[in-house]
Amino acid sequence: MALDETHDPALESFVPTPEGTPFTIHNLPFGVFRPGPGFDARVGTRIGDTIVDLSVLEARGLFDGPELAGRDVFSKPRLNEFLALGRPAWREVRLALSRLLRRETPTLRDDESLREGALLPADRCEMLVPAEIGDYTDFYSSRHHATNVGVMFRGPDNALMPNWLHLPVAYHGRASSIVPSGTPIRRPCGRTLPAGTTTPVFGPSGLVDFELEVGFLVGPGTALGELVPVERAEEHIFGLVLVNDWSARDIQKWEYQPLGPFLSKNFATTVSPWVVTLEALEPFRTEGPVQDPQPLDYLRTAGNPSWDLPLTVALRTEKLDQPHVIAQSNFRHLYWNVRQQLAHHTVTGCNLRPGDLMASGTISGPEKHERGCLLELTWRGEEPLQLPGGEERTFLRDGDEVIITGTAARDGLRIGFGPCAGRIVPAAPLPAAS
Amino acid sequence: MALDETHDPALESFVPTPEGTPFTIHNLPFGVFRPGPGFDARVGTRIGDTIVDLSVLEARGLFDGPELAGRDVFSKPRLNEFLALGRPAWREVRLALSRLLRRETPTLRDDESLREGALLPADRCEMLVPAEIGDYTDFYSSRHHATNVGVMFRGPDNALMPNWLHLPVAYHGRASSIVPSGTPIRRPCGRTLPAGTTTPVFGPSGLVDFELEVGFLVGPGTALGELVPVERAEEHIFGLVLVNDWSARDIQKWEYQPLGPFLSKNFATTVSPWVVTLEALEPFRTEGPVQDPQPLDYLRTAGNPSWDLPLTVALRTEKLDQPHVIAQSNFRHLYWNVRQQLAHHTVTGCNLRPGDLMASGTISGPEKHERGCLLELTWRGEEPLQLPGGEERTFLRDGDEVIITGTAARDGLRIGFGPCAGRIVPAAPLPAAS
Repeated sequence: MALDETHDPALESFVPTPEGTPFTIHNLPFGVFRPGPGFDARVGTRIGDTIVDLSVLEARGLFDGPELAGRDVFSKPRLNEFLALGRPAWREVRLALSRLLRRETPTLRDDESLREGALLPADRCEMLVPAEIGDYTDFYSSRHHATNVGVMFRGPDNALMPNWLHLPVAYHGRASSIVPSGTPIRRPCGRTLPAGTTTPVFGPSGLVDFELEVGFLVGPGTALGELVPVERAEEHIFGLVLVNDWSARDIQKWEYQPLGPFLSKNFATTVSPWVVTLEALEPFRTEGPVQDPQPLDYLRTAGNPSWDLPLTVALRTEKLDQPHVIAQSNFRHLYWNVRQQLAHHTVTGCNLRPGDLMASGTISGPEKHERGCLLELTWRGEEPLQLPGGEERTFLRDGDEVIITGTAARDGLRIGFGPCAGRIVPAAPLPAAS
Repeated sequence: MALDETHDPALESFVPTPEGTPFTIHNLPFGVFRPGPGFDARVGTRIGDTIVDLSVLEARGLFDGPELAGRDVFSKPRLNEFLALGRPAWREVRLALSRLLRRETPTLRDDESLREGALLPADRCEMLVPAEIGDYTDFYSSRHHATNVGVMFRGPDNALMPNWLHLPVAYHGRASSIVPSGTPIRRPCGRTLPAGTTTPVFGPSGLVDFELEVGFLVGPGTALGELVPVERAEEHIFGLVLVNDWSARDIQKWEYQPLGPFLSKNFATTVSPWVVTLEALEPFRTEGPVQDPQPLDYLRTAGNPSWDLPLTVALRTEKLDQPHVIAQSNFRHLYWNVRQQLAHHTVTGCNLRPGDLMASGTISGPEKHERGCLLELTWRGEEPLQLPGGEERTFLRDGDEVIITGTAARDGLRIGFGPCAGRIVPAAPLPAAS
């Protein structure tokens, strides 16, 4: 990919873009929304505090390039049809949108009825999960996270499993419980083994945690048995979303052997509603960590397979007026990059479908304040977080809201995701026996 | 559930039902098929060697009971819409079909044009995966299997993990690579660690295995945060399918820690195209194993939560004229029953959707010939299987076909699934570097 006119820092839009918004004219993310209760969901982009209804522009014939002309992909309640088209179509739409929204382009700017139909106040719209996610895979690609967790549970000498530096470890997650930012997260009930006992008990989890992650949505799928060369992996990657892979650490500890986490992570996964495309992220390319040992051929990448994308986690308790920042990390800390993740995922022949979500795993950096979950930040609860006003936290309490944001900024460009947020609500009453 | 007129052993159909067919008038399974190339897929049932096109009967108004009248659920390429309706609708359709297909009922029997439209030779139809499977969960519910695997890898003193007898262990599988019986299974390539070395290598798996499993399809779904009491779990269970969870043991061994199997199992999972309903299985109810320690309240079941369903695995190598039976097990050996699996799956609040697949894990019995995978049958390859004609097998070779069948028979009733089969084809060439 190369920079093009859509990355020109001098671009301005006739749509107001407040100072500091992550939704500049250089961003142009994709999402699915309802304009109001009772409306059908459709695809939009966002600029400033405005959502642009792409189904209206499409119906008006404003996407008339060779890839999009005559298609109907934006009136759908999911991005999947658009994702399946591939990068030439994605670039075509991005360029068309960039031109339509510029200060000097009259098409939309001067057409009052079109503007009224297509431009909607974001705060009146309901954002949904952006795609029908057929399968959700969660990687474990941060070396700092894997090392911290390994030190806590196996000691410093066996922190990383022997396979960790050789392949991007991953597991299958649950697709049904992926929810958009803002959905309340009910504290799960489950089975735990209290410390020092051998009899498991049942009740609300006491160790609910967040996990700071970034995922990508798959574009064109692959056939069963088809192996994607790592050099071509990005052809299948549409864009990134923020992900919070909520986890119940006490349930996880008792259930996870030998087949991995199950109920401790499938009660909810929150995603940001806006998908930031690889095109938008292009100016923020970076190399990523040195990989030693060198990966086998099918995982060897060159160039800049990562992005300099700062990530922030803020916590708002019921007593706090303002969210309090508790972690700051960066996407570029990921040891295994997205090309390697996707290529590895297909190497045994597993097929991909448009809309599949592959998440990074918790993204921790080398510093203490860069740890991406409470398990690490409080070192298993041994070092509580000190919050303004004298509150402490080891794990999440009812009423706590976790807000993940991610915004890249450089040389006059600024793009981001908006919040990926969720608040913990009290556990449900246990099911009554009949 | 209770027995009703559809279980009467004296019932006969005007549609020929060859001696020994699992598709008797007492069965009436549901599946999705194409009548021929180019046709849209739709829902059918099967009797003898005949497929009954339910979309034709539906269009003719023959499902006119209170649950189905006016609906359009059988012209779909998936069972999901029908699954969502729930047990009263399933029973209504079963009763209507049982009556329509009886020898003494003239409606279909004497209407030549309707017969021509609705009754199709099974061997000219293409069977598909019966539902759009949103999420696939694989349990690990056979005590004999978990014990055998534990003895092999951890020794007899630590065979079962401490959690195993307390909860139905499970992990999330891959939905995209679920294929219908008959789909060729490509030998996966992947990363393995040869014995006695510390440097992983890449290439075709040398230890491809089958796993004899039975799964169920979820009917009506649940909301996020909703806990299903174990007493009501069967309201959400439509019927059973045979499942072969193909596994690459060498890839599994190197990749699976600490998050569980990933690429070693997601390259393909074969299901039988016919879903046998709980109604059809009712005469074969049985208690299942005694559970000690007694499960916690939310997993405590009474009555007969299992079925006496004999299962057979046959292997056909390229040199064999006939499939050779290599294992015989029974669904009733499962320690954790389907009600417990489903209730456990919702206990942290994970939502279910119609069409979700929950599989049992390998079903092994107490005897050596009842082991449900080659890993166990050959005890990690140490005791090769002896086949007719002098061949031996430890794991599967290219050209080998594995055929799982399951048929319950008792008191003049006989119902089954037909085959769940797949043949191993050679590994794909590695992707060329660009």
